[in-house]
Amino acid sequence: MKILFIQTGGTIDKDYPKTDQGFAFEITEPAVHRILSRIQPAFTFDVVSLFKKDSQEITNADRAQLKVYLSTRPEQKVVITHGTDTLIQTAKFLGTIPGKTIVFTGAFKPERFKDSDADVNLGLALGAINVLEEGTFIAMNGLVMIPENCEKDPVSGQFITLKDNLE
Amino acid sequence: MKILFIQTGGTIDKDYPKTDQGFAFEITEPAVHRILSRIQPAFTFDVVSLFKKDSQEITNADRAQLKVYLSTRPEQKVVITHGTDTLIQTAKFLGTIPGKTIVFTGAFKPERFKDSDADVNLGLALGAINVLEEGTFIAMNGLVMIPENCEKDPVSGQFITLKDNLE
Amino acid sequence: MKILFIQTGGTIDKDYPKTDQGFAFEITEPAVHRILSRIQPAFTFDVVSLFKKDSQEITNADRAQLKVYLSTRPEQKVVITHGTDTLIQTAKFLGTIPGKTIVFTGAFKPERFKDSDADVNLGLALGAINVLEEGTFIAMNGLVMIPENCEKDPVSGQFITLKDNLE
Amino acid sequence: MKILFIQTGGTIDKDYPKTDQGFAFEITEPAVHRILSRIQPAFTFDVVSLFKKDSQEITNADRAQLKVYLSTRPEQKVVITHGTDTLIQTAKFLGTIPGKTIVFTGAFKPERFKDSDADVNLGLALGAINVLEEGTFIAMNGLVMIPENCEKDPVSGQFITLKDNLE
Repeated sequence: MKILFIQTGGTIDKDYPKTDQGFAFEITEPAVHRILSRIQPAFTFDVVSLFKKDSQEITNADRAQLKVYLSTRPEQKVVITHGTDTLIQTAKFLGTIPGKTIVFTGAFKPERFKDSDADVNLGLALGAINVLEEGTFIAMNGLVMIPENCEKDPVSGQFITLKDNLE
Repeated sequence: MKILFIQTGGTIDKDYPKTDQGFAFEITEPAVHRILSRIQPAFTFDVVSLFKKDSQEITNADRAQLKVYLSTRPEQKVVITHGTDTLIQTAKFLGTIPGKTIVFTGAFKPERFKDSDADVNLGLALGAINVLEEGTFIAMNGLVMIPENCEKDPVSGQFITLKDNLE
Repeated sequence: MKILFIQTGGTIDKDYPKTDQGFAFEITEPAVHRILSRIQPAFTFDVVSLFKKDSQEITNADRAQLKVYLSTRPEQKVVITHGTDTLIQTAKFLGTIPGKTIVFTGAFKPERFKDSDADVNLGLALGAINVLEEGTFIAMNGLVMIPENCEKDPVSGQFITLKDNLE
Repeated sequence: MKILFIQTGGTIDKDYPKTDQGFAFEITEPAVHRILSRIQPAFTFDVVSLFKKDSQEITNADRAQLKVYLSTRPEQKVVITHGTDTLIQTAKFLGTIPGKTIVFTGAFKPERFKDSDADVNLGLALGAINVLEEGTFIAMNGLVMIPENCEKDPVSGQFITLKDNLE
């Protein structure tokens, strides 16, 4: 099995690199590298950084560029990490791409944090992509969902679905 | 979606609770509680501790007890955490149980460790169980496998498969 | 031994609490609580939150308020956590307060981070305050320094001193 | 400032390196390396591994060897990491060594653990060694103590002292 990981940015990849004159989190290297280093992956993979943007800064031009980029890649299985605020929007924009199984995930706490959800979420995406056939999916809060049935609860921030299965 | 988590023991749940007169890791509370506390689960679940044994201490009597226990539970989806040395053996022993989707996982480093693989592995099991229909599966090292096609590499310790899919 | 811990803000206390509509590190509860929970302290202590400000937002009015506040407290030993950019300035502003041993510390990475320096730095301040008599000191980068001999290297961000001792 | 760190073993350095056929915590590389990598030390140092033993396996022959080893080293400031069960005993055995400031520390949870006390304890030893003159000291549970006044509470495991100062 070969998986392509694409970084678009978002909380999952935020770090705190500065040590002088000011303070800021910054989106740096893909956290996917650090997460995979913990599991001895028994699959092959490639990690590509396409954007380093917060979710709210992702434009439809970016989404179109992502779609074009995907068409240039031979991999069938793709995990895309994305900021949570517009993750559903980007997943819907892509829609189903023939021959591709795409799973979106992200995190509410940066992977750098001790209590981050990043590792579980990436694992969730991996578990889904092992099994799923063609389609574009969202893996968050322990659920694997299709974008049309998924919404982000404005109070809790959770990704939820009203459907009990992927149909 | 409702998921039942069953603790059987293994490295994933090892802690280091003593502070005086000696030293020992011990298998304590299910790490599943701590892992799920990081992700705001959007599903319902129950966590049961059936054994607190190292993998090599699990007997066929234990496996039979596990199989009986599963038959008493109404949940269709079950994640079982297990020590890695005999995880495949226990999964094969159970076989397919009608009406149940069962996913085994575990960890090479205790969840208490900073560099543990526990979070990714549990996420992997969750991602698989969202999607899979009836059957018994193994989720380790980023792969979702059926027990008959899965083996543990004696050198790297990795769970690997020679098949590229779940058929 | 009784120690008073005073929060003024800074990187050490930054968290990432929002889950919807936007993103930001925010200064929240004092990290001192979490750090001390890891060590079973054999001393008594109190933790007070005076400010939740980034170092660069601390004004001389704040510093004067801190000085007045210290005079109202009976504790002889005080550890002050502070952002790193103006930590030296605040320590110099306070100067020596008769009857008080004051140690400033902070962190380059939030305590929430896996690779934070917060635990070591707070330990450093504690080790110094156990031993030191009256005076105001800075504990950072493994060194205990008097403010007049301490400077922050603009390139590395490190707190350094040209003196080899505390005289 | 130059500090020599000496590993003797103990919980602080325990890791979980095996991935196949069995399970065990083992004492591996000095955790001091990993802890110091988090703080950008502004002092020079050397790290030496003398033993990799649990506290209860340290013999008086080992203690004598440690004492001889110290006499061969030019450094004035020495931090010794040690298992907690016989740490006080070893510190008393060494006694005061002319021209040396020696601080013993250790941990109740391995440094590899998320909730380890190792970072605070090593910071505590560093803070003490910055300030202290000749003598042999113990830095644990937030206190800096002389061995004669220090005891380990058999219930809590804490290192405590009945004296409020280092006299």
